[in-house]
Amino acid sequence: MRRVHVDLSLVSERVLVKQLQGLADGPVSVSGWVETVRDQKKVQFVILRDESGAVQLVNPATRPAEDGSDQDAAALALTDLISNLATGTFLTVTGELKHDERVKLGGVEIKIARLDIAAAALPETPIAADSGLDKRMDWRFLDLRQRRNNLVFRVQTTLEHAFRSYWIERDYIEVHSPKLMASASESNAELFEVPYFEDKTAYLAQSPQFFKQMAQVAGFGKIFEIAPAFRADPSFTSRHATEFTSVDAEISWIDSHEDVAAMQEELLQTAFQAVKDKHGAEIEELFGLEVQVPAIPFPRIPLAEAREIVKSRGYEIPRTDGDLDPEGERQISAYVEETYGHQFVFITDYHPEIRAFYHMRDEETGLTKSYDLLFKGVEITTGAQREHRVDVLIEQAKEKGLGAEHLDFYFDFFRYGAPPHGGFGMGLARVLMLLLGQDSIREVTYLFRGPTRLAP
Amino acid sequence: MRRVHVDLSLVSERVLVKQLQGLADGPVSVSGWVETVRDQKKVQFVILRDESGAVQLVNPATRPAEDGSDQDAAALALTDLISNLATGTFLTVTGELKHDERVKLGGVEIKIARLDIAAAALPETPIAADSGLDKRMDWRFLDLRQRRNNLVFRVQTTLEHAFRSYWIERDYIEVHSPKLMASASESNAELFEVPYFEDKTAYLAQSPQFFKQMAQVAGFGKIFEIAPAFRADPSFTSRHATEFTSVDAEISWIDSHEDVAAMQEELLQTAFQAVKDKHGAEIEELFGLEVQVPAIPFPRIPLAEAREIVKSRGYEIPRTDGDLDPEGERQISAYVEETYGHQFVFITDYHPEIRAFYHMRDEETGLTKSYDLLFKGVEITTGAQREHRVDVLIEQAKEKGLGAEHLDFYFDFFRYGAPPHGGFGMGLARVLMLLLGQDSIREVTYLFRGPTRLAP
Repeated sequence: MRRVHVDLSLVSERVLVKQLQGLADGPVSVSGWVETVRDQKKVQFVILRDESGAVQLVNPATRPAEDGSDQDAAALALTDLISNLATGTFLTVTGELKHDERVKLGGVEIKIARLDIAAAALPETPIAADSGLDKRMDWRFLDLRQRRNNLVFRVQTTLEHAFRSYWIERDYIEVHSPKLMASASESNAELFEVPYFEDKTAYLAQSPQFFKQMAQVAGFGKIFEIAPAFRADPSFTSRHATEFTSVDAEISWIDSHEDVAAMQEELLQTAFQAVKDKHGAEIEELFGLEVQVPAIPFPRIPLAEAREIVKSRGYEIPRTDGDLDPEGERQISAYVEETYGHQFVFITDYHPEIRAFYHMRDEETGLTKSYDLLFKGVEITTGAQREHRVDVLIEQAKEKGLGAEHLDFYFDFFRYGAPPHGGFGMGLARVLMLLLGQDSIREVTYLFRGPTRLAP
Repeated sequence: MRRVHVDLSLVSERVLVKQLQGLADGPVSVSGWVETVRDQKKVQFVILRDESGAVQLVNPATRPAEDGSDQDAAALALTDLISNLATGTFLTVTGELKHDERVKLGGVEIKIARLDIAAAALPETPIAADSGLDKRMDWRFLDLRQRRNNLVFRVQTTLEHAFRSYWIERDYIEVHSPKLMASASESNAELFEVPYFEDKTAYLAQSPQFFKQMAQVAGFGKIFEIAPAFRADPSFTSRHATEFTSVDAEISWIDSHEDVAAMQEELLQTAFQAVKDKHGAEIEELFGLEVQVPAIPFPRIPLAEAREIVKSRGYEIPRTDGDLDPEGERQISAYVEETYGHQFVFITDYHPEIRAFYHMRDEETGLTKSYDLLFKGVEITTGAQREHRVDVLIEQAKEKGLGAEHLDFYFDFFRYGAPPHGGFGMGLARVLMLLLGQDSIREVTYLFRGPTRLAP
């Protein structure tokens, strides 16, 4: 083998690895990081990965001659450079692209003519692909280099863009509601306090609830927001975080929560289809599961009936407040999957005692016009029609022991006219976790935040 | 005139006001809020507005007969109801649509058959269109009912969707970086502290700077984020807020900040074109200005040259650190507008002393590879290539007096390999303010947050 000579003046533009298969043999330049090095006596192989894929680089090794005879200094240096490449080093390689069907990785390889290191990695990588979750989170920036972790965020991107596109095609307005609030959004529990100017205290918004309702009395008609929300929640479950991305929508002139549910199921169907179209094959390869685009309408089951079904399956829900518990949610979802072949189910008709004060109540049944949406056994959403009649709203708040002193600014929204309205809030990480069959939202959160996790 | 009789069973679906012109005469149902009532003796007019427009409703008044003779009770009640309608009341009207070119408002009117109040407004509206800004912010939910304020957020929606679509078409990944951090992102100044679990202190992110760089070392290639950022900034200027929406992008394998600038100018051109296409006429009507889609490339002027130009225009910049001040920014933008007919200008080649420690420096000049982007005389962006060589980075931090104790987690990002990269952060409200010719970001922020403003 001889050293490769490439006229470097012909190669200036970086190409992505995924583009190589479509290029003719000849000089190319690729940039990425070192995934592995195989440093054999006569030949060196480097697997280089970039954001689009991985490619094999090859170099005929030039070692110092045993008999001490002269060697090409540049060739010696290049061989030495490759021998000392640490995993993770970012570099640019210019070389000769060659299609060769014997190369398992994409049927192409690049013979290295020139190698420029952007920033070398320390020789020891602190984590491996099979390190524990907590350790991987300590080194999240390395953990995210794994193909499946990268895919998580490409799926997230597609999912969100499909949500927003669905809404924008239907004339929704995007809002950015403030995360610093003068008072609690729903209750004083689990609120982060922020010392503010002039000895005031601000609170971090637990949800955009009040402010997305404000858009309705402002006559915005239909709105959405995807933004962080904060809960000072000491839970360590796989489904909770102190900071999470909340997907929210709110619409006016609805007849009931059914109008909200109908929008949400169509939204999810559209977005899952987009994910399947763009990433279905790769999700199957890396996560071993097929994305199921849900049929609409999703099944609906009133809460009382759901509890009966769960009981008839042999599970006694220990909660006494009439709600489902996590195992009850898994059971009812299993029932729905078995009976209707559906991964989603709306649970409806919750008693006011277990719902927020602003949920509207049905005049006949006294139950709230609200739902929870379960996906693969886990709650991902609460949706509801809101009470827009201020006297009823104040009465319902009073029932929950919530006084006017903190809520009067909110009650004001409804004193100058209000349309009937409703909406939902959905945890983005929960949807992603379940969509990709993961055990914990930590796996699908860019940088997880929990009671004992604030860094990196 | 006689009372209108409509077969209500024919009318169930709400139509938007903007759809009325395209409908044939006949029964319709519209929902919205009362903008004005003209209660004349023989006829009543109501201007009803919804999220899409305004329409005139008409009702032949039926008053109690002076001679005490019998009248249609329903007609009397409807007339009375309309007489007592407060501005802002949300209602649904079913009636007879009639095209009539004498009606100034869209050439249609609806004769009221039935009127259902969703929620009545208090009789006195606390603000008027000409109330002061602070009072309007107290009642922002009413202020937002104004057509021009509604338009602000429809423009914002289009602008952001165009940004995201531009990026997504180019394979950018959307990230949601955490807003709760264990340490400061750039300096300890102007940071909000949040008491956290186990007596720890968290800080609210001033920018996603460190975390968007993390995506580069994670091999994400190109990313964007639109999210809140927080600054405990005591300023009361028209351009500052304690919470604002930051538009951020970061890309790998750049040669210099020029690659970032080239992306940003194309992004802005694309997005302004989208705004002009969708809202150009309405912006002209309500804000009295034409949206100018900027030509690319935008002009570039090195800082030292910009200062000379400003000086030659007769303005002596009082700052001694070599930067521009706000008046200097207005002057250089005026010069660019006069000379090149352009509303944007990149100011480049800033001295390291007036830039963040992580800005990369040009090896020849020693100046940073960074820019500020001015739009109509106001800074809307700082962009830069970042220093990705960890030893240089640490040295530059040290120069600024920033020690490793708070930044070590950030330095770690670069110890395991890193690509050359750069990006920008852009204040969404500033762009909107200038695009719509407004005096203050408060006018274009859904709910402004400042040192003395936390509510509603």
